[in-house]
Amino acid sequence: MLQLEVAVSKVGKYATLESGDTLEMIERPHGGISFVLVDGQRSGRSAKVISNIVARKAISLLAEGVRDGAVARAAHDYLFTHRQGKVSATLNVASVDMVSRTLVLSRNNHCPIYIFKRQDLLTLDEPSQPVGIYRNTKPIVTELPLEAPTIVIIFTDGLQTAGSRKGQSLDMPALVQEICPDGCCSAKMIADRLFNAAYTLDEKRPVDDISLLVITILDKPIDQDGRHLYLALPL
Amino acid sequence: MLQLEVAVSKVGKYATLESGDTLEMIERPHGGISFVLVDGQRSGRSAKVISNIVARKAISLLAEGVRDGAVARAAHDYLFTHRQGKVSATLNVASVDMVSRTLVLSRNNHCPIYIFKRQDLLTLDEPSQPVGIYRNTKPIVTELPLEAPTIVIIFTDGLQTAGSRKGQSLDMPALVQEICPDGCCSAKMIADRLFNAAYTLDEKRPVDDISLLVITILDKPIDQDGRHLYLALPL
Repeated sequence: MLQLEVAVSKVGKYATLESGDTLEMIERPHGGISFVLVDGQRSGRSAKVISNIVARKAISLLAEGVRDGAVARAAHDYLFTHRQGKVSATLNVASVDMVSRTLVLSRNNHCPIYIFKRQDLLTLDEPSQPVGIYRNTKPIVTELPLEAPTIVIIFTDGLQTAGSRKGQSLDMPALVQEICPDGCCSAKMIADRLFNAAYTLDEKRPVDDISLLVITILDKPIDQDGRHLYLALPL
Repeated sequence: MLQLEVAVSKVGKYATLESGDTLEMIERPHGGISFVLVDGQRSGRSAKVISNIVARKAISLLAEGVRDGAVARAAHDYLFTHRQGKVSATLNVASVDMVSRTLVLSRNNHCPIYIFKRQDLLTLDEPSQPVGIYRNTKPIVTELPLEAPTIVIIFTDGLQTAGSRKGQSLDMPALVQEICPDGCCSAKMIADRLFNAAYTLDEKRPVDDISLLVITILDKPIDQDGRHLYLALPL
């Protein structure tokens, strides 16, 4: 029996009212679940409007059963048409597809995706275009079998720029391997540690919106049957 | 500083492949977040198809900024038209609306909603129609100020029928007051305890799909800045 765990941590750029990043999740009609992470150009309200448009389009298509590669293309075309190619956003779609029994990672983001299989690190960093500005933009799609242990780390560039105010940066792969040497850890633990490391490096005043999505697949006895979701946020 | 916590627990009816209930969440474009809980008629795949249609329609409208009362009406009209009034579903929409700074509870469900304010219990149990079968069905909408402490308990009828195989049932209000006498507890703790009580009463073989949504508003120091989401499910 495999257990899927997903953890998301998000905080807005310091002194902005809201994060320009949007994270949404939706059930897949043929089974499984998808996560959409969008970072709108610039920050604050204008970025939020853009990331909301792109995420909404992606989510509504995923909910109708549209395949992930087509979803990313459609989200691009929609933003490109809507804003005449003048506005960009990064887009990551991560899906647990129960039909193909794969993890489908679709990437339109200069930030890499890190995948850990026990001690092995796979970095998805092929050059990739954001959506919205170049005609016919396509996602880079990677499919992985659903098998334990797997750790997938997806993030927006606020995590990469964390610490830049004082000329520092996170070595994320090294940090994940330090946090979880055997590759078998809960998504929540990894996300909490990575998020706190970035947030501390930014001295609690993030240089940019930070969003982090961690997916783990573990081969472990379930401590609780059923599905469980937990969300906490300041009002 | 108020902190919002939301916890969802879900399990399918025993010996069915999937739950016929659907729970989705979506950011509100003007600020805040909405949760949609749908219980499709019957159980298994046919119920899932129905609950997915209703939830998808509700989510896509909420994402566009449509007000909650209109969302429930539209979801009804859509199912009514699509299935010629032959299929029903219960629908709950719970929104944290940052514009009005209220909790908006929209109910098309014979199951009540329980609201706790410290020791006080408010039961929302006005007769309410499911969506899909009666022309011009409307939701019952209740608005509450965002203030601490507040506990809101929303569920599908699987929680009410838990234990019916041996002629028992949960006294949910009494159980919540026992779990959390002062009304200041985390949503996760309450959801875990209620879910486990129902699941145990059903001897781990649920008589019906069980879904439980707990929302708490607490006035407490935030132990972690930012927004955090955590999801666990068996694959």
